Amino acid sequence: MFRRAASGVAVLYGFHAVREALRGKRRRILDIYATEAAARRLEDDIAGAGLCPHIVTAEDLARRLGVGAVHQGVMLEALPLEPLDVSDIVSRSGIVLVLDQITDPHNAGAILRTAAAFGVDAVVVTHRHAPEMAGVVAKAASGGLEHVAIVGVVNLARALERLGENGYLRLGLDSEAELNLAKTPLRRPIALVLGGEGKGLRRLSRENCDFLVRLDMPGAIKSLNVSNACAVALTLLHAR
Amino acid sequence: MFRRAASGVAVLYGFHAVREALRGKRRRILDIYATEAAARRLEDDIAGAGLCPHIVTAEDLARRLGVGAVHQGVMLEALPLEPLDVSDIVSRSGIVLVLDQITDPHNAGAILRTAAAFGVDAVVVTHRHAPEMAGVVAKAASGGLEHVAIVGVVNLARALERLGENGYLRLGLDSEAELNLAKTPLRRPIALVLGGEGKGLRRLSRENCDFLVRLDMPGAIKSLNVSNACAVALTLLHAR
Repeated sequence: MFRRAASGVAVLYGFHAVREALRGKRRRILDIYATEAAARRLEDDIAGAGLCPHIVTAEDLARRLGVGAVHQGVMLEALPLEPLDVSDIVSRSGIVLVLDQITDPHNAGAILRTAAAFGVDAVVVTHRHAPEMAGVVAKAASGGLEHVAIVGVVNLARALERLGENGYLRLGLDSEAELNLAKTPLRRPIALVLGGEGKGLRRLSRENCDFLVRLDMPGAIKSLNVSNACAVALTLLHAR
Repeated sequence: MFRRAASGVAVLYGFHAVREALRGKRRRILDIYATEAAARRLEDDIAGAGLCPHIVTAEDLARRLGVGAVHQGVMLEALPLEPLDVSDIVSRSGIVLVLDQITDPHNAGAILRTAAAFGVDAVVVTHRHAPEMAGVVAKAASGGLEHVAIVGVVNLARALERLGENGYLRLGLDSEAELNLAKTPLRRPIALVLGGEGKGLRRLSRENCDFLVRLDMPGAIKSLNVSNACAVALTLLHAR
């Protein structure tokens, strides 16, 4: 039923993730599998991408993807998006995100979705410690992955150095920082650096920031889920 | 090793969730189980709550909680927080959240954490469709659950009616609404109504809002993860 997926093939599933991959036209799509209902719902997008879907059952998809995957009747296999280099970033909003070992795929996906909604110019991740940019991440990103430039780097500290050389103001988000993001003098372009769940920013990441800044929370809890912190920070930056 | 947990007992685990439960003093705590290391780390808080921990191994906790639970060496059993009624809400920030069938416990937890960080007055949930306010939700809330008044209701539409009678401006968040939250004339107190993943607000919830409002996103994706949408909306409301 399913062709054997080669390594290096990105598997995407879920209605929004698949629809945006079809519409975004940034990927080479190899195969699409859908239930009859999903194929009908996505008919125009599938045809627009010049594809002919393999009709399968929901059970077939569950067997292929595992029971936890919320596939919504559709899955595709594609070549991964070409990873970009720091020098490839095109400045439009003047904001990039730098993810320092954000390993939870739901958080990474929510951040990509929010990044796409705010039109950030790029999301910088390490090749090694980032969750794979497909599957759960793509589903949680709900199509956001197709609209954000992903910069994959080997060494995050070196990438931050290069962003600094390219004129980026590097802001590390840290709930215990002295500076309040809302009151810090800013200039664009900005690289907003987000640390992993629990551990926060690594030492070398902190040292390669121009400022560490906190979100000034009025309530009893001072630290947010990393994707929520990202959403608050982007809202504050967008308003300035 | 573990006493058999009776039904109606809330199980909390994870460093922040347990620490805030110990410090918050809003719960009757029945038992606390910790590894030696975690017991040492929480020594003052455990003693402050007048408790004596059962020392267990990480493996004991994993067996008790399941392998997926990030227990961080500590777990406690407590009576659930007393659910409040709409009429019990004490207005401080003048903002309450109303959750319409947000069933993903990670999203519900992240929302509670963000709600605690913004000092919202209460979070209104339905008894039936809300995930249980313990376990995964409490862990994801990272202590936030102990700092937010939870109002449990049977009928969400009726609760929205009562909030309206009590002078609340009821704003339903909907990515396709015509009104932009940032530009809508507001007065407090505000009840911000958030719909479930995928389905959004139910018809009766929508009909019991004064306005449906959207977040005006500049990028290609217009709809956010519900906890991220909550974070953006609270940031915008807090700034006004």
